[in-house]
Parts: sequence; structure tokens; C-alpha cells
Amino acid sequence: MSKLNETISRITDLNKEAIKMAQQHLDMLTKPQGSLGVLEDIVKQLAGITGNPMPKLEKKVVIIMAGDHGVVEEGISAFPQEVTPQMVLNFLAGGAAINVLSRHAGAEIVCCDIGIAVDVEHHDLIVRKVRRSTNNMTKGPAMSRSEAIKAIEVGIEVAEEQIAKGASILATGDMGIGNTTPSSAILKVFTGCPIEKAVGRGTGLNDNGLARKAMVINRAIEINNPDPEDPIDVLSKVGGLEIAGLAGVILGGAAHKIPVVIDGFISTAAAMIAGKIEPKAINYMIASHVSEEPGHKLMLETLELYPMLHMKMRLGEGTGAALALHIIDAATHVQSEMATFESAGVATAKQ
Amino acid sequence: MSKLNETISRITDLNKEAIKMAQQHLDMLTKPQGSLGVLEDIVKQLAGITGNPMPKLEKKVVIIMAGDHGVVEEGISAFPQEVTPQMVLNFLAGGAAINVLSRHAGAEIVCCDIGIAVDVEHHDLIVRKVRRSTNNMTKGPAMSRSEAIKAIEVGIEVAEEQIAKGASILATGDMGIGNTTPSSAILKVFTGCPIEKAVGRGTGLNDNGLARKAMVINRAIEINNPDPEDPIDVLSKVGGLEIAGLAGVILGGAAHKIPVVIDGFISTAAAMIAGKIEPKAINYMIASHVSEEPGHKLMLETLELYPMLHMKMRLGEGTGAALALHIIDAATHVQSEMATFESAGVATAKQ
Repeated sequence: MSKLNETISRITDLNKEAIKMAQQHLDMLTKPQGSLGVLEDIVKQLAGITGNPMPKLEKKVVIIMAGDHGVVEEGISAFPQEVTPQMVLNFLAGGAAINVLSRHAGAEIVCCDIGIAVDVEHHDLIVRKVRRSTNNMTKGPAMSRSEAIKAIEVGIEVAEEQIAKGASILATGDMGIGNTTPSSAILKVFTGCPIEKAVGRGTGLNDNGLARKAMVINRAIEINNPDPEDPIDVLSKVGGLEIAGLAGVILGGAAHKIPVVIDGFISTAAAMIAGKIEPKAINYMIASHVSEEPGHKLMLETLELYPMLHMKMRLGEGTGAALALHIIDAATHVQSEMATFESAGVATAKQ
Repeated sequence: MSKLNETISRITDLNKEAIKMAQQHLDMLTKPQGSLGVLEDIVKQLAGITGNPMPKLEKKVVIIMAGDHGVVEEGISAFPQEVTPQMVLNFLAGGAAINVLSRHAGAEIVCCDIGIAVDVEHHDLIVRKVRRSTNNMTKGPAMSRSEAIKAIEVGIEVAEEQIAKGASILATGDMGIGNTTPSSAILKVFTGCPIEKAVGRGTGLNDNGLARKAMVINRAIEINNPDPEDPIDVLSKVGGLEIAGLAGVILGGAAHKIPVVIDGFISTAAAMIAGKIEPKAINYMIASHVSEEPGHKLMLETLELYPMLHMKMRLGEGTGAALALHIIDAATHVQSEMATFESAGVATAKQ
């Protein structure tokens, strides 16, 4: 059995007994039942994932997948392609937004070159290049089917390496100039939504750039005709290497009963791929924020994921996920540290 | 001049020069301009409040005001009145949700008895009782005008004590069984909205309880006829002692150029009072979450405050504000720790 199929076969439903026990404990705590809302939902989800009604997050790791996109030659990004390796070096030097927010959340970062167009040398970079950049998807498939599978498997392996080193929660991050274009294409193929619902300004396109990007996405879908029932087909034809890698991170987390925090538009495109490959994987996803990219809300609705943060962010890198890590951590502290009605001598509701 | 008037007179506009300098620095950081959304807005607001374009939060303090409500005899709460002192003791023992979330945010808690119906004894409790509980507002004013002013001044003084001890940011919290009822009344009086937009289930009313509560609020407004142009009149007739105290905390923070994080429905009712007393005080407020109480969204819109957290919470105590403290802290780290395009050798946008 292939690595991918073996991983899929290990993904199970959540542990219902642990969820029930978590709920019983939550209802004994000194607060009206259910009044902590999403914090209580997170506790129950983590209980279902880990099997522990009093879940703990010992080690948090943000996995950033970096890759390039041949479609940038169509002029669909406000930034030049050389920014991909430059920002990767910035991550490794500790100066990017994701570094600041991960430090603040007590999380580690790992960065994987899964398909940057040039070679990047740094002792902390995980180099697992499947190929140098994708092809221009307006002229044919972004990559071959076997490359797409290989890139997913790289993501699984990177997740497994971090889990073996003790990660108890993973968060997804992306870097790749041009990568909102394949993410919008994935959204449009899976939902059939009109292009204006799927496309946005990315890191800062003007009106002309936005219109050009919409036309590029439509052309890529028309030329490649991806099959919405076959997520690997969609991924290889109009996706990206870092998107494939993040889909793998999610599947790898789910297979090992590790929760995966989903960042913004690119990460949620990867989540759509992972959820189409194995719908049970969605149970292991925790949404973080809803971004300024207009299609992100529709992606989250399609996956039935609820974003707790409304930060008007549009940066990627895992920045929204890193902010959510603190809140997810807070939920576990509520479950383990709050007093019960009985221990605190507080009266319960009259009704 | 009274303490209240002296405080109001000290509240100024934000420092525009510091905001401009903060913006200039944000635009040099390695991210598309504006792509960190609300985090950037927070940096600029903190710069405008403190005058420092690189703002720092050294010490965070959650101030919980606790008071009781005579209107509970109309059966408008799911919990009995004795829960107010019981929960205050729970706060002081460290077992409530706000304790867990404040510890997790690195914030301290202080709790003030501004009007609990009974006496509570604990060495850490700040006892500044203006009176024991309000009156039943369906039978006349909740309190006298001078009591309302006194309660606001208590809030100012408690804020000033914390600022003198080094607090660089304050967060509001409330405890008082029945206090969504006066908060809904305040919303209805100020906005003229229909009662069904202002009223909610509080800590867990059933359908009958909700209908009774709506009728009680309408009766209180009809009997007292508060003047929406006179916030002290509204506060004294259909408000509460802890709401007055929190309005004072906000005004006291603003007068000392200290940001105040606003929690949920009760705290935002206090923010409406403070904002009507002195509209410039709104510049010093940072909204945290939008709660499950249906009227909260309308309150925030009226104040033009943007809630970053959508947690489906309905607990109060300052729990939403405590979660937001981490994010506000994160914003200050972004400003002070991120690399610039120049320092990191990253190319800027093409457009």
C-alpha cells in the first residue's frame, strides 16, 4: 500500500466516549452550561481526537510549506517570485510575522522547501523539493498526478517527523508567491461558484490585476478540465506543491490523532483537498481565522468549519493559526483548571 | 470640580503624530501593507493612546466590578442572587473562568464589591460598596442620580489605583446576577431598538423566562422614562452599580491614556454609558468579542467598535477581554520584533 493510502486507512472517527466525558466535566465547572461557546467545542473536539477528556497541548508546531507557481508569468501577483526564497530565509532568521506570532504562542516553526523555483541553503530548512515550481497551469497541468501524490506524501512525512519529536498539535502555514491563484481555482472547481466569489486581491492586486487573475483562473480550469470528484486530479492540474504538502500535513496529523489548526485561504484550499481525499480528516481540523480573501468564507462553510478569529488578515504563513493556538491552549486550561460548582460552593441554575 | 467632571476634562483626542509614525513603521515590515489587518489597527490605536509608535504592554489588569440587582425579584435570571457573592469568592480563590484565562494571558485580576446585596469578606476584595444592590427598577429608579455618579467615581478610582501600580492596559469584567436585564434596558433606551433586538437569554433563560424578561425591561423603561440624552439619568434609572463602576473604569483609563479592553454585553453597556458621557473615551476602547447575547452586536455597531473574537461566549466576568489581551499583546510584538524589507533583503511589491 502506498504511503498515502496507508495514511488514509488510519484516519478514524472521533472518540465519542471521550467527548461525552469531556462534556460531563465541562458541565460541572462554575459557569452556565455551554457559556464558554467555542472554547467548550474545542475541548470536546480535542477530547475526541486524543481520547483524553482532559486534553493537554504539550508542544505546538507550525509547519510552513514553501513552493513556487509557474502561473506567476501571467502577472497574477503583486510581488515578484524571488520573494518566496527571500521570505523563507526571513522565516529561518526569525524576522517574519509568523516568527513573532509563533514565539508569542509558544510554538515552534519548521519550514519545508517542497518546490521553490531556486535552491535555498540554510541548515534549518527541510529540503524535500518534489520539483522546482509548478508549470504554468494556463498551458497545461501544474504538475503530474504522481508529483501531486509525492508532494502530499512529503507533507505526511514532515508531519510524522514532528509528531515523532513530540508535537501534540500542528498548525499549517504557506509561502509561495502566486498561491492564492491555485487556491481560488481549487475553490471554484469543488464548489462550482462564480469566479467573482472565488478570486481576491491576494497580497495587493489593483483592479486590473484582479480582473486578469480571474481570467487566468478561468483559463486554467477550462484548459485542464479537472474532475471535482477526484481531488488528486484537481490538485495536480490547478493546485500547487505547498498546497499538496499542507494537505499531507493535515492527513498525517489526522492519521496520528493530532489536531491540525488551519490557517487562511491557501491552508484551507489544502484542507478542502484533504477533506475530499478523506472526509473523516475534517474532524481533526480546527479553523483559526476568516481572512480578507473573499473566497475563504465559502471554503470554511463548505468544510463546515467555524473561524473564531475575525482579524481582517491576508498574509498567510500560518499567522492566523498561530494566533488561534493561544485560544486553543486556553480551552485546555479551562477544562483542567476551573473549579466545579461543588468544590467552589456555588449554587446551580434554578430552571 | 467633581471627580467625574475632572476626569472627563482630561480625556483628549488620540496622538495623530504617533499614529502616523506607527503606520510608517508598519509599512516597512516584511508583509504586504495592511495585511495584518486588525493587528495593525491595534498597533496604531495603542500608538495614538500612549503617544508611543512602538507601544508595549507591561502590565495587564482585569478589573471585575460586582453588584446586585433588585430587579431579580421579577424572575429574570436563571441563577439565584446568592451566586453573585459565591462567584466573587470563586474569583478570589482563583477557580473561575476569568482566573484561568487571565493567568493564561499573563494578566492580574482585581475584584471590587461596588454593590453586592450581602457583605463578602476576603482580604483581596476591594470593598467600595455604594449601596447594597439596586432597587427593583420596575417600581422606580434602580438608584439615585448621586449614587450613580458615586459608582462611576468608584470605578475611576479603582482604575487609577491600578494605573498607579503600573497597569498599562485595563480589561473590564462584571459579576452580578440579573445584569443582562439593565444592560438590555440601556441598549433599548439609547438606540430605540425593538425589545426583541435588545433582550436575550442571559445565562440560560427558557422561552417563558425570556418573554418575562422582555416585559420587565419594557415596564422598567415605561415607569422610569429615562432621558437618552442624559447617560447618568439612564444609568441611575435602568442601570446597575457594576455597570456604573465599569463606565468609570473606562473613563479613568481614557483620562490617563490607558487602553481599556471591553468584554461582552454588560461591559459594552458600560461602554455605551461612558461613550455618551464623553465620546472621546471611545477612542480608548478596544472591543474583544461579540457574545451570544443578541443585543451585543448592535451595541458594538453603535459604538463603531470591531470585535475580533467570535467565540459564541455568554459568560461575562471579563472572559472575552482576557482572550483578546493575548492578541493585543501579539500586535505590539509584531511592531517591535518583525524584520523590515531592507533588513531582511526582501523585495517589495511591483505595483
